[in-house]
Amino acid sequence: MRTAVGIDLGGTELRAALVAEDGRLLARRSTRTDAAGGPEAVLAQMTGLVADLDLAGARPVAVGVGAPGPLDAEAGVVTGPPTLAGWHGFPLRERLAAALGLSVAIDNDGHAAALGEWRFGAAIGRRHFVYVTVSTGIGGGVVCDGRLLRGRGGLAGHVGHMIVTDDDVVCSCGNRGCWEAVASGTAFGRQARRAAAADPAGRIAALAGTAPADARHVGTAAREGDPAALALVAEEARRLGAGIVGLIHLYSPEVVVIGGGLSALFDLFAPVIADAVATRAMPAFRDVAVVPAALGPDAGLVGAAALVLAPN
Amino acid sequence: MRTAVGIDLGGTELRAALVAEDGRLLARRSTRTDAAGGPEAVLAQMTGLVADLDLAGARPVAVGVGAPGPLDAEAGVVTGPPTLAGWHGFPLRERLAAALGLSVAIDNDGHAAALGEWRFGAAIGRRHFVYVTVSTGIGGGVVCDGRLLRGRGGLAGHVGHMIVTDDDVVCSCGNRGCWEAVASGTAFGRQARRAAAADPAGRIAALAGTAPADARHVGTAAREGDPAALALVAEEARRLGAGIVGLIHLYSPEVVVIGGGLSALFDLFAPVIADAVATRAMPAFRDVAVVPAALGPDAGLVGAAALVLAPN
Repeated sequence: MRTAVGIDLGGTELRAALVAEDGRLLARRSTRTDAAGGPEAVLAQMTGLVADLDLAGARPVAVGVGAPGPLDAEAGVVTGPPTLAGWHGFPLRERLAAALGLSVAIDNDGHAAALGEWRFGAAIGRRHFVYVTVSTGIGGGVVCDGRLLRGRGGLAGHVGHMIVTDDDVVCSCGNRGCWEAVASGTAFGRQARRAAAADPAGRIAALAGTAPADARHVGTAAREGDPAALALVAEEARRLGAGIVGLIHLYSPEVVVIGGGLSALFDLFAPVIADAVATRAMPAFRDVAVVPAALGPDAGLVGAAALVLAPN
Repeated sequence: MRTAVGIDLGGTELRAALVAEDGRLLARRSTRTDAAGGPEAVLAQMTGLVADLDLAGARPVAVGVGAPGPLDAEAGVVTGPPTLAGWHGFPLRERLAAALGLSVAIDNDGHAAALGEWRFGAAIGRRHFVYVTVSTGIGGGVVCDGRLLRGRGGLAGHVGHMIVTDDDVVCSCGNRGCWEAVASGTAFGRQARRAAAADPAGRIAALAGTAPADARHVGTAAREGDPAALALVAEEARRLGAGIVGLIHLYSPEVVVIGGGLSALFDLFAPVIADAVATRAMPAFRDVAVVPAALGPDAGLVGAAALVLAPN
């Protein structure tokens, strides 16, 4: 069976895996990304992780890397990710190929995770679907007419930077009103801290204790029925739903798949999101399903390998 | 030279043309759409227009129809356009093919116009572009990776129904906050009437006279330097620009082409739109050009013929 190495380069965690062509993770290693060390340090981490993978005799055909965007997948160059300083213009594909002696493909992490869910997860066999990852930011990837959309410079599908509000909320990208600015895990965490500060005797603050309140505390409190937490969840789901309705009109998918850290609360968001699609989408679009990612946190890692095992 | 018949079915005007494979309009006829008569009456109008076309010996290979969406291009069925009552489920492709004895393709008018601009207009040779028509509503079509995006049921590219604001503005589709609701020609006309009512002695009201003020009056007043008109133009351009920035992040086009009735004021909007792209888009996207449609009001008509002459 053919295998490939997938590498998921995150701002905090760097992961590598040996992946079979049927999507199984055969071996994996991870470490904390040496973000402060810059691209040369991280390149050394990557080669180290791959060398440490237990290949058990497998001979991977190539290496796929999912990295924070924007990046130029055609040129194999990292363009200037907000979460990784000093990477602007770094020729990751060429340098990693030289270090490993294997051919390398790179793409942004949203595209990689979309490919993972398409080939091996919640969107197997679909001709049209949208993958959205809701985490520190909001990213994604789109399959339309049976192909992963790449666009100029491989930059299609930056769904987090669709402008969804006139509100003067500044996004990590510097723009105002982006979906990411109002509905990402970062935005939700900010709401959690505000709620905890506004009611120090409340359930969210109690669960957080001395730590800053975050999405997990809100999720736990909401599952217990805490009204403040339920209100935060409803507002987040409303913001997610509005963006998803826009995406449905823009790309006409069969299904929308939600991944990323905040999808751990998907069951709490689901009713409000489903209601948004059923009432705010135009009639021809109202039967589009919104489902959680099947591969969870491994979507990007498996998808990175899929960049070379089953790219399109 | 191969030729085809293009038909542009609008809510107010029905047009047919003989189009050569190089995009030239060889003959044309038009009439006022008998919208009240329903699909059977309009079908008769279509066959009448085609019969009246001066073919000068040409033998068109097929017929392409652009019609208001949503419609199911694969099935050839009109789904339920807000501007045409009684059309829900009408099998336009089949009925027209039987009446004309020619094969017929149908697609929504946004896709048809995008195809026209791609094959014969402002986006010739592009691999990635977004066409936006700003008129009664906002529609469009998207070419990504060298293909016109169709999506499930041929419904991709309903760019007017991207949600761009939390404001409680009701759209023609029934939803709130759509780009179409705040930035279409209809929305701009509403602002024009408000401005005229607020200042009956002002330039916009004077130009309108006894008629309701509309986009043309605002355009004329703005070109004369009228401050109220310039403010309306700036606000409209800001709203168009915000949506265009979102579309650039979503589809990563090389160029955005703006057509539709309101593009008659494109020169007035252009500086604010260009500024939005230069300041609100992420750096990797800031060089994307926004240009007016080259085919003007004929984009949909020529593009309808392109549906059969050069579909993808």
